[in-house]
Amino acid sequence: MDIELYMQTVGQRARAASRAMARADTGAKNTALRAIAAAIRREADTLLAANAEDVAAARAAGLEPAMLDRLTLTAKGVAAMAEGVEQVAALADPIGEVNDLKFRPSGIQVGRMRVPLGVIGIIYEARPNVTADAAALCLKSGNAAILRGGSEAIRCNRAIAALVHEGLAAAGLPADAVQVIDTTNRAAVGHLITMREYVDVIVPRGGKGLISRLLAEARVPMIQHLDGNCHVYLEEEADPNKALKIVENAKTQRYGTCNTTESLLVDRAVAAMLLPSVAHMLTHKGVEIRGCAETCALVANAVPASEDDYYAEFLAPVISVKVVAGIDEAIAHINQYSSHHTDAIVTDNHPKAMRFLREVDSASVMINASTRFADGFEYGLGAEIGISTDKIHARGPVGLNGLTSEKWIVLGDGHVRG
Amino acid sequence: MDIELYMQTVGQRARAASRAMARADTGAKNTALRAIAAAIRREADTLLAANAEDVAAARAAGLEPAMLDRLTLTAKGVAAMAEGVEQVAALADPIGEVNDLKFRPSGIQVGRMRVPLGVIGIIYEARPNVTADAAALCLKSGNAAILRGGSEAIRCNRAIAALVHEGLAAAGLPADAVQVIDTTNRAAVGHLITMREYVDVIVPRGGKGLISRLLAEARVPMIQHLDGNCHVYLEEEADPNKALKIVENAKTQRYGTCNTTESLLVDRAVAAMLLPSVAHMLTHKGVEIRGCAETCALVANAVPASEDDYYAEFLAPVISVKVVAGIDEAIAHINQYSSHHTDAIVTDNHPKAMRFLREVDSASVMINASTRFADGFEYGLGAEIGISTDKIHARGPVGLNGLTSEKWIVLGDGHVRG
Repeated sequence: MDIELYMQTVGQRARAASRAMARADTGAKNTALRAIAAAIRREADTLLAANAEDVAAARAAGLEPAMLDRLTLTAKGVAAMAEGVEQVAALADPIGEVNDLKFRPSGIQVGRMRVPLGVIGIIYEARPNVTADAAALCLKSGNAAILRGGSEAIRCNRAIAALVHEGLAAAGLPADAVQVIDTTNRAAVGHLITMREYVDVIVPRGGKGLISRLLAEARVPMIQHLDGNCHVYLEEEADPNKALKIVENAKTQRYGTCNTTESLLVDRAVAAMLLPSVAHMLTHKGVEIRGCAETCALVANAVPASEDDYYAEFLAPVISVKVVAGIDEAIAHINQYSSHHTDAIVTDNHPKAMRFLREVDSASVMINASTRFADGFEYGLGAEIGISTDKIHARGPVGLNGLTSEKWIVLGDGHVRG
Repeated sequence: MDIELYMQTVGQRARAASRAMARADTGAKNTALRAIAAAIRREADTLLAANAEDVAAARAAGLEPAMLDRLTLTAKGVAAMAEGVEQVAALADPIGEVNDLKFRPSGIQVGRMRVPLGVIGIIYEARPNVTADAAALCLKSGNAAILRGGSEAIRCNRAIAALVHEGLAAAGLPADAVQVIDTTNRAAVGHLITMREYVDVIVPRGGKGLISRLLAEARVPMIQHLDGNCHVYLEEEADPNKALKIVENAKTQRYGTCNTTESLLVDRAVAAMLLPSVAHMLTHKGVEIRGCAETCALVANAVPASEDDYYAEFLAPVISVKVVAGIDEAIAHINQYSSHHTDAIVTDNHPKAMRFLREVDSASVMINASTRFADGFEYGLGAEIGISTDKIHARGPVGLNGLTSEKWIVLGDGHVRG
């Protein structure tokens, strides 16, 4: 196979299909999504069989257990996949929405219309459910999708693609609206991220290594999701009960998610009062505490934190802790060490809460709430295609609107410029 | 001078200044802008003298007349520069605006807050007025700016920078909020467009050559402005008077602007009726007509158009003309040949106007209006930093909002995720 020619063809087909998708009406898109969900339910056994082959091959090739776990599809997983697609069908259609249409002194009316981005390339690891999720979100937002999943999942991804095509056909929409890259050749990614003429944006879903590689090589704009080094800052006027509850939820509800808190900042004025009880709770839950000298003096079982610990996304029962002089140091620390994902302050002081809200340069900034809330469903977006830590285009949880753009529309009646 | 070290220092200073600018209040920003405008007026002679030196050096170096013209500053130009800065002071401050703050079922309130992008790099040709314009827009939107103007204008840019710093100081804002790259070394640009840690977005203002080079090398996201190959499509139900008026304005008001129409499409059903009068008007104005075979059959002085002519941004009294079978062919032609800047339909038919509005994939799409309206002032944005032909982040005329992003804000009272 000539991989460059193959990818060019995929790109041309996606561009052509994107025109049809841009004009597809809401009814047709929802019909396709419901047909895909029904097909997934009907062909559950086919998907599980294809996945079993993928898993067997991956195990034989020595794939590590955590990745095998993500690759493995269960009957419950198939049902959740179908349900996810139906949830996208139930979301409001963002396309065609017109905002701020106003008359101007010249007599023209000027406004903005929400339109699809066009062609979206999605690059992800060997997780079959992402294939269905990403296809559904791109379809509903009127885009054409090119999906490149981890090569270990290729049999299952092919089987899902067939069901997506069945659903598109049922609604009279072009099959090329969702294309799954049908090769495990790694060069396919290199072409996908540089075909500016055919691809409007790349959404990478995967680890830091994948994203760094794409950042270095991509020519197509990316909606990137880097790591989540989230902070909770206990300000001098933090309510001790809220502080304890929020740190517990933010750090210990789940260790492996990007909105989990990895670093705790505590005001010097209240460190002696707050830190021992917070540390007791964390230790009780099995969380290792890596702290600054002051933290170690207050918390018997804390170990000294390194500079790297303050930059780290542990994704594990480990937390870094630092005692700070006040809100200035807290904000400066967060803007330096945070991954700009989600950071929270706990305080009953209004001016300080407002300063934190305004000055912390992260995708989500919270007052008296757990960082775990940073999520498309919790924010009311419905499903999300990722959480952007970038500032351009889409920031934080990216739902359907993040896959659209707004063009300007001008309505006149023979108007010309003076 | 170690150019890499110099640019790293510029980047670090800009990042530090961006924090102060993000929290600067509206009053301070407006004070700075008004002080800059006053300083520009007061030091008009200094600016004109610096510019005269630039012009003399450029002339001696054999710079071409069109570029010398853009480089040359007049007393009127200095006054317009000061006025432009005052106009930016008068615009509403977008920073801190909170949108769509809503309660969620979990009890948290979720909304979005408009915040600066951070550090903006602006790369432009030897046009001194851009230095003042760009500084003013970045300052008002709470960003730090790194300005890299064409090397031929360096003396005048230095003089403007001194006045900008005077204005920043008058308002207690950091001088590093606006830095003018003080070297003509071309390697500076290479560093500027790859320093992801210090620069959040690059706005290139310049010709196609500059943008292509940046597209190939940039690692920092860009708000790009490519060319403006704008279309007017005369649909079967176009009102002949509106058609004539709009084509005249769109093509002949100014030949050198990016929102000037470069290509005319005419429905076959009305070509014999409309084209001769439109062609007569264009010819009378001195516009050369390059047409398809059908156009040439209807218009005596038309010359055959090449394929390249349909892709061309002439920026000259030349227009390409094509007879099309109807709206499907018109939309397909525009989506193929347009630069996705601005395209207009002339028709009294509502369904066709709506189809054109929805399906043409350009930054501005117009019904019965001249493409010349695609402009920040005409759209009500005030001054613009450029016109984006990209779909990501900012599309069409880019005003203050295009230099901002929206972060998510979450307000709770001890809320944790269930």
